[in-house]
Amino acid sequence: MGKLLQTKALAKQISENLVMEVKGMKEKGIDPTIAVIIIQGDPASECYAKVKQNIARKLGVRYLLTSVHPQVTETELLAKIKWLNRCPSIHGIILELPLPKHLDTKKLAAAIAPEKDVDGLSPANKLACFTGEEGLYPATPQSCIRILNYFGYPLKGKNVVLIGCGETVGKPLVQLLLRANATLTVCHVYTNNLQEQIEKADILISAVGKANLVTTNMVHRDLVVVDAGINEIQGGIVGDVQPEVSEIVQAATPVPGGVGKVTTMILFENLLKAVRLQANENKREVQLSESL
Amino acid sequence: MGKLLQTKALAKQISENLVMEVKGMKEKGIDPTIAVIIIQGDPASECYAKVKQNIARKLGVRYLLTSVHPQVTETELLAKIKWLNRCPSIHGIILELPLPKHLDTKKLAAAIAPEKDVDGLSPANKLACFTGEEGLYPATPQSCIRILNYFGYPLKGKNVVLIGCGETVGKPLVQLLLRANATLTVCHVYTNNLQEQIEKADILISAVGKANLVTTNMVHRDLVVVDAGINEIQGGIVGDVQPEVSEIVQAATPVPGGVGKVTTMILFENLLKAVRLQANENKREVQLSESL
Repeated sequence: MGKLLQTKALAKQISENLVMEVKGMKEKGIDPTIAVIIIQGDPASECYAKVKQNIARKLGVRYLLTSVHPQVTETELLAKIKWLNRCPSIHGIILELPLPKHLDTKKLAAAIAPEKDVDGLSPANKLACFTGEEGLYPATPQSCIRILNYFGYPLKGKNVVLIGCGETVGKPLVQLLLRANATLTVCHVYTNNLQEQIEKADILISAVGKANLVTTNMVHRDLVVVDAGINEIQGGIVGDVQPEVSEIVQAATPVPGGVGKVTTMILFENLLKAVRLQANENKREVQLSESL
Repeated sequence: MGKLLQTKALAKQISENLVMEVKGMKEKGIDPTIAVIIIQGDPASECYAKVKQNIARKLGVRYLLTSVHPQVTETELLAKIKWLNRCPSIHGIILELPLPKHLDTKKLAAAIAPEKDVDGLSPANKLACFTGEEGLYPATPQSCIRILNYFGYPLKGKNVVLIGCGETVGKPLVQLLLRANATLTVCHVYTNNLQEQIEKADILISAVGKANLVTTNMVHRDLVVVDAGINEIQGGIVGDVQPEVSEIVQAATPVPGGVGKVTTMILFENLLKAVRLQANENKREVQLSESL
């Protein structure tokens, strides 16, 4: 039976570092604050927001919830985002997705100030992730890489198969995996030899969002599996990978208790990075105004 | 012996379309104009600029050469670029690379107005290439895809091995190949089983810039090879792929006479796209001023 890559200890480690850092910031007079916008009535969004609220409290981070009516207009929501952008005491903004169909998600995500965009959805952060420059990268892709690092599975020169190249997880993961010098194969719905591709893989990452996509007959005993899928089923959530896969492979992350747990922590790492980015920005502005 | 994918006819086809389109633009009073900046004394840059000048003449495109001293300061060069950005009669700007070491290539490339950036080097165009939005994409990656389309090799669901993930060719190619729904494996200097990867490939694209990187023993007879490498050797240029490879595989692009020939034409396709982008921009401005 393979190793189950439970991420509780890693999440705890990140959490302890965050608590220390938040404390340090507060001593300097900065009160790290995250603003979460949710659309009323979506149970999943409300649940995710609740999880974030609980973690925020544990970390000592101030949490502001903006709960808007599902009939909110784009103009109203844009105005809210812009107000949060301008507000100097708010350091991070999360717009819980999905939005109702009458709202343009892309446009609204693009309205979030890049230095407050802890989900890495804005164009500037997408570009940074693509080019490798400083920025706030999406949390789930970072989480996958962090878990592999933590458990001692290097990426350099390894054969990595990534299933899924969607906007929020797959595509940024392509960049991070190539930057880590993995030999990367990207598979998706048009791939007709997925099993063959997995056969020669050292590491498999699934980021599709389809339960039971990866089955026991596809995997081998040397494989390390990272399951970034989150699929709601009756009675809970499951990943993209059949749970029985973990009995065959070398190691696999469970769902829940794997990628998601670390993702939420990284969101708060992004928040503290956002605080630092904004502090540097302010410093530059002060220097500039002094030099004028 | 495999098929040699000579691109002369494709380049001619593109060229004929461009001549027609340039004619149409001139009838509407637009004189498509490209400005090329070269640093004096670099023979390769001067040679590439010359090639572009000849093609511009054949297409009826106005060509403006700005030849600057190798000791030019960054401020001076930035000023030149900004002047070209503002000049309404100039539609495309090419900054011939590489630049002398005292100049910040990234900063200068980023200064080119996105709608005139026919090389696709500016941040806005990099982002567009990453997200799949409208923009000016780099010409060499487009050329590789176009050649495969032209010769009837579909990409959807095919196993494509790309060697090289550099900024100008490999990385944008990753995006274009994934958008074409290829099952994509990206190899590079840290890949330790290149030959094994190529074994299961339908299509191989090399974009490294290293002569004789792909040798006859690595390939198989069903493979289609696109060689995007350009390597200067005594007496001419060669690609990344040993010329003898074409005798074994199903089909291969030669160097010269393959990717490069189409790349130059696509640069001018980008120029005409730039003309259209700027015309739309002007139209919007006129509408805006009329509505005020």
